[in-house]
Amino acid sequence: MRATVMYGAGDVRVENVADARVVEATDAVVTVTRAAICGSDLWPYKSMEPSETGRRMGHEFIGVVDAVGDDVRTLAPGDVVVTPFVWSDGTCVFCRVGLHTSCLHGGRYGVDGVDGGQGEAVRVPQADGTLVVLPVGRDDGLMPALLTLSDVMATGHHAALSADVGPGKTVAVVGDGAVGLCGVIAAQRLGAEQIIILGRHADRVELAREFGATDAVSERGEEAVERVRELTDGLGAHSVLECVGLGEATATAMRLARPGGAVGRVGVPQEEAIPEGISTFFDNVTIAGGPAPARAYIEELLPDVLDGRIEPGRVLRPRR
Amino acid sequence: MRATVMYGAGDVRVENVADARVVEATDAVVTVTRAAICGSDLWPYKSMEPSETGRRMGHEFIGVVDAVGDDVRTLAPGDVVVTPFVWSDGTCVFCRVGLHTSCLHGGRYGVDGVDGGQGEAVRVPQADGTLVVLPVGRDDGLMPALLTLSDVMATGHHAALSADVGPGKTVAVVGDGAVGLCGVIAAQRLGAEQIIILGRHADRVELAREFGATDAVSERGEEAVERVRELTDGLGAHSVLECVGLGEATATAMRLARPGGAVGRVGVPQEEAIPEGISTFFDNVTIAGGPAPARAYIEELLPDVLDGRIEPGRVLRPRR
Repeated sequence: MRATVMYGAGDVRVENVADARVVEATDAVVTVTRAAICGSDLWPYKSMEPSETGRRMGHEFIGVVDAVGDDVRTLAPGDVVVTPFVWSDGTCVFCRVGLHTSCLHGGRYGVDGVDGGQGEAVRVPQADGTLVVLPVGRDDGLMPALLTLSDVMATGHHAALSADVGPGKTVAVVGDGAVGLCGVIAAQRLGAEQIIILGRHADRVELAREFGATDAVSERGEEAVERVRELTDGLGAHSVLECVGLGEATATAMRLARPGGAVGRVGVPQEEAIPEGISTFFDNVTIAGGPAPARAYIEELLPDVLDGRIEPGRVLRPRR
Repeated sequence: MRATVMYGAGDVRVENVADARVVEATDAVVTVTRAAICGSDLWPYKSMEPSETGRRMGHEFIGVVDAVGDDVRTLAPGDVVVTPFVWSDGTCVFCRVGLHTSCLHGGRYGVDGVDGGQGEAVRVPQADGTLVVLPVGRDDGLMPALLTLSDVMATGHHAALSADVGPGKTVAVVGDGAVGLCGVIAAQRLGAEQIIILGRHADRVELAREFGATDAVSERGEEAVERVRELTDGLGAHSVLECVGLGEATATAMRLARPGGAVGRVGVPQEEAIPEGISTFFDNVTIAGGPAPARAYIEELLPDVLDGRIEPGRVLRPRR
């Protein structure tokens, strides 16, 4: 079969690889019908050291079940399925509390003999614990929206939950990429009263407004902090969604929160330490978040996608 | 009147100062009957630059109301009162949500013309919002325990709440000082199943065990992390109480938490950045805490102190 392999910064090839097949009794093989490129794929695309063997790419996909192992109970060939961006057994101590990203028997796509999602097919380990059946045909018009459940919409939702978004609250969203825009959708869905998007891409900020953002701030750093204070009676935001991961954006996010507020960070950190540790301490600001347990959120968000109450597929094509 | 003034590292003097008196209509003057030295007083005691004018000391005290301003409604001369370690109006947007340490009209003792608690009397601003009347005589045997409500017991409780301690959970307490010991009391009170104290003072660890600690770890750093993992089925603690504030202790605390767990930090940070930002991200560990809103907790904890269900006064005298 054909699959995408990255050999170094800027060096992505589509090559022949071994066909995906059932290896373990808990595997399913899925023929990929839609796949996405993640913001996190951009880090190796910019900085990966040259590699002889390359790295299989992709962890966000939808497809059709082609075959299942003997122990798979909830899936059958022909099922249209979406995967969270990591696979998990669904039964361990962490899966049982909804933290599938820390599954004791789970793992990542594209490593250790598991296929990547940017290819013709994928062997999905722990298929019962990982895949969610979608009640739609393989070419349904909702496919872009459903594909976001694999990662970006789940991640925006995780940022919002981690930042304790709720009715009546003021929310600041740092970053107008796909995750930031999904953060706006999630904040609006959870009842936020004021949603401030921080970004400087006009088309994405416009889309954020359509999703429910009430204010937009194009400044960065200290000026952004001042603008958000002006918009919030001098207090700062109850909830801050950090959707970038770079040091400066993270420092800004920490300073946007009001005392007693929370920062939900979902941008993969590019630096080891968390900045602004002293000011967040004195303000009792909570710092939460991490990789989104998308498996836990797909079932929660799916009805809203199917009903068209949220339209996260639009973040994949902001320039209409 | 006589009061304690610090002029530099190791240079503490008891001197004559201006008598405390009512200045604002919302003030009360309290004759101090008990006062404590805070762990945070030790930082300037070790490192304060020499000062011509000196710095009035003390923010933890109990006393008897001597006089009140015209606008004070809830206090009368003769009342025995305890103060939280900061003063607050009790009515602002932060006080109303229980975060009195961020009061918009509050402040600290010992600065800006407000007396310190280590002296014969104190002018307490915003007295109605700050002081809590104690239903005991001024020399009640519970005074040591009641005095801890001013800071250390409230702070241990805040660490436990920030770390989301609850029934059935595994808790690690980093530090066996007064706050760490109060953290053990708070964790036990909130129903923790396993409480691991990290410390190496035999008398304090023994007291922690009397307060409900189930395990003690004397190692530090990576060895401490390994010991706690051994004690928790390899998973780490649900809740970690960081009661030190130094960089190494904070880094250890972050690494003791299991995926999805929380660190409640109440040790005043001595370094700007929070360590272990990447590992806590990938493990979805929440970092919360800050200065304890003691004013909010005094009423919650007072019945348990009066009934003897908790005995935080013992942390002031671990060597019996």
